[in-house]
Amino acid sequence: MLFPEGVAIDGKTGAVTPETGRYVKRLSELKGIYQDQAAFQRAVSDGNDPVAYEVIDYRNKESDLSFGTTIMAPGQVGGEYFMTRGHYHERPECGEAYYTQSGEGLLLLESRDGEVRTVEMKPGICAFIPPDWAHRSINTGKEKLVFVWFCATDAGHDYGEILTKGMRKIVVERDGRYAVIDNPAYTKASA
Amino acid sequence: MLFPEGVAIDGKTGAVTPETGRYVKRLSELKGIYQDQAAFQRAVSDGNDPVAYEVIDYRNKESDLSFGTTIMAPGQVGGEYFMTRGHYHERPECGEAYYTQSGEGLLLLESRDGEVRTVEMKPGICAFIPPDWAHRSINTGKEKLVFVWFCATDAGHDYGEILTKGMRKIVVERDGRYAVIDNPAYTKASA
Repeated sequence: MLFPEGVAIDGKTGAVTPETGRYVKRLSELKGIYQDQAAFQRAVSDGNDPVAYEVIDYRNKESDLSFGTTIMAPGQVGGEYFMTRGHYHERPECGEAYYTQSGEGLLLLESRDGEVRTVEMKPGICAFIPPDWAHRSINTGKEKLVFVWFCATDAGHDYGEILTKGMRKIVVERDGRYAVIDNPAYTKASA
Repeated sequence: MLFPEGVAIDGKTGAVTPETGRYVKRLSELKGIYQDQAAFQRAVSDGNDPVAYEVIDYRNKESDLSFGTTIMAPGQVGGEYFMTRGHYHERPECGEAYYTQSGEGLLLLESRDGEVRTVEMKPGICAFIPPDWAHRSINTGKEKLVFVWFCATDAGHDYGEILTKGMRKIVVERDGRYAVIDNPAYTKASA
């Protein structure tokens, strides 16, 4: 039987207590999502393969709803900010909420039919991600970006299409702030 | 088509911007949930039928997940703190998360087979409510209690059993702090 629990969330570090699991993504595991391959190799070597982001779960198979934190390091690769891989949900009827606790970022989203949207992430903003929109988080600040996510336990992740095709836009630093520009490497779906 | 959106949540006031709806519960609408009927009548008259709590939604029928805030005034009726009506979800497979933003309270829960649990509500604590546990929020502090809730859009509310039978425990002030005691008026289910 599943029991109620008070789960402590540290909005600065992203610690979840108690947690049910976690994973760490080091930069080397994110090969292919950045434009500049040489800059990517340098960032991996020079930074000693830094942690790009970490995800901590509070997840129970017996509950329809799960939550957890994502903690994103600040950083850039050839002018592109550190970002998550980006994904659709495996179950297309599942949306998500990202409630930012500290830092600043940009949530980049696109729909199956090519609509692109961004939502600024900052403390006090709860980003609503509708069902079947791909979403990628980007740390556009100089500090850690920490947010709490809430979604269906069985929503699942579909990374395939974003990893192989990319997203339509990329987010780069221009004159000290972020700019959303066309992705020169975006692969249009073949008919 | 549903679009992504950044929803501002004010952790002090509970304001949700944009919001999709809200409702207010005045004390007079909560007749029957407090033990002391005379104290209840006095609290309604003397307080000019005060707002006990308010719920603000960000809800879309096309999304599986909704969220919003609950803003609970501080107060007491005959030694019992201001509380919500309490409910099960109509769909028993649906859990919920209550992420406290300001104030302090107690979440009182009970399962169908009579297990009782409490979770302290305070900033930084995200209370996990498992599927099919009745839950009632209680403002045990002197300030507003504000929390953000996240649950399935179609979870629904089943108030009936709690309103007619009560919950097994009540929460009262004793020596300046809360105490969880047996509910003298609790109606045991007839076989």
